Amino acid sequence: MHGTGLPLVTPFETDGTIDSRALRELVQWVERRGVDFIAPCGSNSEAPLLSADERARVVETVVEEATVPVLAGTGHAGFDATRRQTERAAEAGADAALVVTPHYFQHDQETLATYFRDLADASSIPVYLYSVPKYTGVRLEPETVADLAMHENVAGMKDSSGDLVSLGRIARSTDDEFDLLVGSGSVYAHGLDAGADGGVLAMANVVPELASAVYDRHASGERGAARELNATLVDLNEAVTGDDGIPGLKAAMRARDAPAGRVRSPHLPASDEAVTRLAALVDRTLDDASLEAVE
Amino acid sequence: MHGTGLPLVTPFETDGTIDSRALRELVQWVERRGVDFIAPCGSNSEAPLLSADERARVVETVVEEATVPVLAGTGHAGFDATRRQTERAAEAGADAALVVTPHYFQHDQETLATYFRDLADASSIPVYLYSVPKYTGVRLEPETVADLAMHENVAGMKDSSGDLVSLGRIARSTDDEFDLLVGSGSVYAHGLDAGADGGVLAMANVVPELASAVYDRHASGERGAARELNATLVDLNEAVTGDDGIPGLKAAMRARDAPAGRVRSPHLPASDEAVTRLAALVDRTLDDASLEAVE
Amino acid sequence: MHGTGLPLVTPFETDGTIDSRALRELVQWVERRGVDFIAPCGSNSEAPLLSADERARVVETVVEEATVPVLAGTGHAGFDATRRQTERAAEAGADAALVVTPHYFQHDQETLATYFRDLADASSIPVYLYSVPKYTGVRLEPETVADLAMHENVAGMKDSSGDLVSLGRIARSTDDEFDLLVGSGSVYAHGLDAGADGGVLAMANVVPELASAVYDRHASGERGAARELNATLVDLNEAVTGDDGIPGLKAAMRARDAPAGRVRSPHLPASDEAVTRLAALVDRTLDDASLEAVE
Amino acid sequence: MHGTGLPLVTPFETDGTIDSRALRELVQWVERRGVDFIAPCGSNSEAPLLSADERARVVETVVEEATVPVLAGTGHAGFDATRRQTERAAEAGADAALVVTPHYFQHDQETLATYFRDLADASSIPVYLYSVPKYTGVRLEPETVADLAMHENVAGMKDSSGDLVSLGRIARSTDDEFDLLVGSGSVYAHGLDAGADGGVLAMANVVPELASAVYDRHASGERGAARELNATLVDLNEAVTGDDGIPGLKAAMRARDAPAGRVRSPHLPASDEAVTRLAALVDRTLDDASLEAVE
Repeated sequence: MHGTGLPLVTPFETDGTIDSRALRELVQWVERRGVDFIAPCGSNSEAPLLSADERARVVETVVEEATVPVLAGTGHAGFDATRRQTERAAEAGADAALVVTPHYFQHDQETLATYFRDLADASSIPVYLYSVPKYTGVRLEPETVADLAMHENVAGMKDSSGDLVSLGRIARSTDDEFDLLVGSGSVYAHGLDAGADGGVLAMANVVPELASAVYDRHASGERGAARELNATLVDLNEAVTGDDGIPGLKAAMRARDAPAGRVRSPHLPASDEAVTRLAALVDRTLDDASLEAVE
Repeated sequence: MHGTGLPLVTPFETDGTIDSRALRELVQWVERRGVDFIAPCGSNSEAPLLSADERARVVETVVEEATVPVLAGTGHAGFDATRRQTERAAEAGADAALVVTPHYFQHDQETLATYFRDLADASSIPVYLYSVPKYTGVRLEPETVADLAMHENVAGMKDSSGDLVSLGRIARSTDDEFDLLVGSGSVYAHGLDAGADGGVLAMANVVPELASAVYDRHASGERGAARELNATLVDLNEAVTGDDGIPGLKAAMRARDAPAGRVRSPHLPASDEAVTRLAALVDRTLDDASLEAVE
Repeated sequence: MHGTGLPLVTPFETDGTIDSRALRELVQWVERRGVDFIAPCGSNSEAPLLSADERARVVETVVEEATVPVLAGTGHAGFDATRRQTERAAEAGADAALVVTPHYFQHDQETLATYFRDLADASSIPVYLYSVPKYTGVRLEPETVADLAMHENVAGMKDSSGDLVSLGRIARSTDDEFDLLVGSGSVYAHGLDAGADGGVLAMANVVPELASAVYDRHASGERGAARELNATLVDLNEAVTGDDGIPGLKAAMRARDAPAGRVRSPHLPASDEAVTRLAALVDRTLDDASLEAVE
Repeated sequence: MHGTGLPLVTPFETDGTIDSRALRELVQWVERRGVDFIAPCGSNSEAPLLSADERARVVETVVEEATVPVLAGTGHAGFDATRRQTERAAEAGADAALVVTPHYFQHDQETLATYFRDLADASSIPVYLYSVPKYTGVRLEPETVADLAMHENVAGMKDSSGDLVSLGRIARSTDDEFDLLVGSGSVYAHGLDAGADGGVLAMANVVPELASAVYDRHASGERGAARELNATLVDLNEAVTGDDGIPGLKAAMRARDAPAGRVRSPHLPASDEAVTRLAALVDRTLDDASLEAVE
């Protein structure tokens, strides 16, 4: 995986059931706007709120609909559940598995390394490590990643720490075959500068064409322009990954008429205030980005 | 629920399968030593590492074997999973459900209140709130608890924050019918002094008779003696709920020949160093407690 | 030092100069209401905003006016400054020095132990350790305290961590000669239950008679009554040591006509909203406490 | 101020007195290696361990010896002390003042804004804001900085948060006249990419020529080369600003025969282990950097 991917949101009906039709439409919606790969069942997909069966079905649906590679989120708190979910994703045709550090209990680095090594041994598809301290309270240290990267079935990592020092260390201590993916949209261009190979970005659910354009500018050598464009996305990204959360992310998507669907409980719908504010922020972001493109 | 309960550990075989026989023996082992109720599928039961089916079976087994009330842990990250797990616990004969705040996403107080209210509406057995910031990164504020306590199907709370200011506020803002349970063994006696009605204590897996004796002394008016006894348990409690974690908790239990079984992955077995150290700590604790009893 | 002391606020004129006359009146005001000792130049005295000369003068003034023992705050970030300030306090007649852990840089336990040992060697008056993680980001671990307590010139400690587990461990690992003082008013009675010998409490600036009554009840064996009374003080204490800060503490004092004076820059005066709210809270606290006394 | 500056360490004799001769030599030592300005009395200068008189003298000495501009650290916890220290720096000939957010008490943004506005009004030399959450527990929010930047006597800022999102926001919300300085050496090049105008870097005490070269490459348009060089400095920077602290910083300097002098109490000298390890790290860093230069 390289280039710009996204933790695809899972559209729900008002009663909380998965809206498979909207999910298919959403795959098309983001593909038309240019993403390079899709990651269903990530954090922003509300995967922790899905059952194992639902997760498998979401992956199946996305695999069927997508023309780009699929990086399926398969991590649970326990090893066996993760192993089984990974196998189901493989059977459904996912290209690789994105595996969050096992959460709830705060495991040490040795435990995390054993966990990922055992999983990589067991998995029939490549494994991508996923470190997201905001949700798990735990981070994969660069030394641990460097060690795991030597496993032939560990193909890369999504680092959502937002810490460029750590990201740079990982980039330098892993080889070219290791796909290092930025998980923090606000520093996407800096992350690419630091040696990352792409990103998996929540904001790419709202503005896939802009997130992709950051990567494309960088790839074509226009690094300053990539950072300039990225700068126009910071306010939106901070909103939908910060206080407004997934309800805000989906509200921002709906402001663009994306088939985002509703949230699932315990998430509550975004407030009217947030819906209005985020719609304005989406508009402003699109304006700023197009102005920036002209300059 | 009142008096001393425990988040009963789940004994696993070396290969990670549940050792149901050991589980039954463990129920007897702790009952013989005097606990007042049993909470299967809590945090220290490694419940997040069990499947929904396994959780239901563990509750069934404990209900069958136990002669004391059973408070079944039923919380998941998502509302529907929690609702279903609660119903299965009810069908299995659990007396009430212990429901951790929904984790992974860090929900605000309004979201948490809605979640628990909806669950209490839906549940056929009484619901106990469970706040454990160490694992979830979220705490139930006293105001939220006071509000939820007015629901007729919210029967109580386990507070594992260790914060006596918060515990006292909850005790004062809820009525006598609300069962407030301390989740931090090191301040059990202080928590009872602050108005709690009992505790659900990890260390009661190791020294059920001593944890129970703290409560009994307090209940019989010997509050100073309760605190003195509790003081002898602090080092053990801090070890098995701190750096040594659940692997340490089970190692300490095995040092007393309790049928604790093994841990499940991603947990790794306690190191030899920890096993030796914890065995010595258990011995010292039993000695100190019996000396204290003589004084 | 034992019983109830207070970090006496420093009254300032509107222009920020010290109001020595108000300071003298304040000493009388709190003594009339029954405190057992006075700690000028503590955190709540805004000591970090005073010059070394001003601190020395404040101690002199308090020593002259007070009839109870004086525990002078003398800690700076650097050793030499602390040593000199301690000597000036000794010359001014202070009975002992209250020395906060050196702040700004986050020193490890070995560095802190060396610092306090060197200071205790150099000081002509007894030294009390002062651990207040809220302000310094550092805590004195129980092992460090136990070690320092063996120094003949280390006479005690003020622990403002609010952590009863830590407080209890310190109480058990130090001898009877070591004066352990609670720094968290909301858990004063629990702290006494845990083995503390008294307290140095910000809220005793507002309600010295009530803070003292908590201690007196405890000392006379009415421990439950001490906790009940303490419970009525929690809301006030949390306000004046929490979000409302020292501006709120002084506003609450002025609501009782105590000669608290103004705050010093960078502190801003409490907002009108806070002044009104705190005045009501003081009234309610006095009402609750007198009702409680009747019961 | 723009380009590469450094918080010049203060050399002490073994007994803790300031070694003025070494200080002068150090000014020459770093100037010969190419820094663009010098900041005496910053955090890494152990300024919080100096008296007001000592700070003034250090500034005087540096001003006398330096041929580059001098940005004098003048911040205290209290406004008056800061105002006076700033005036003494001005009298000594400092070009501007670097003022840390007032520490110990954790002030809110409104209080910080008032503080800096009042100081900028009072100061006869330009004021640079200094935000270093690691030491103070407080950060200046981008909105606060944007607001303060409009004051004609607020000339710039040193941001040691290491947060590029925040740094970028500040860069975009302030005009070209505002000098934005990076305080985190590990992300110096990224910070320049994000719009900063220079840096004030602890590691420039050890490898001034390399820190300066990062800036020079960036300024000459070789941004990738700037990042590559910066990458070779990360391990050293993390060591001397992380666990090894100022004792480690000075040990690393001595490994290059820089006249760093000793630390002042409460700082303890670096351990033998640290001295050896840091010397090796300095060697490796110089090797890596020269290799990188060849590529």
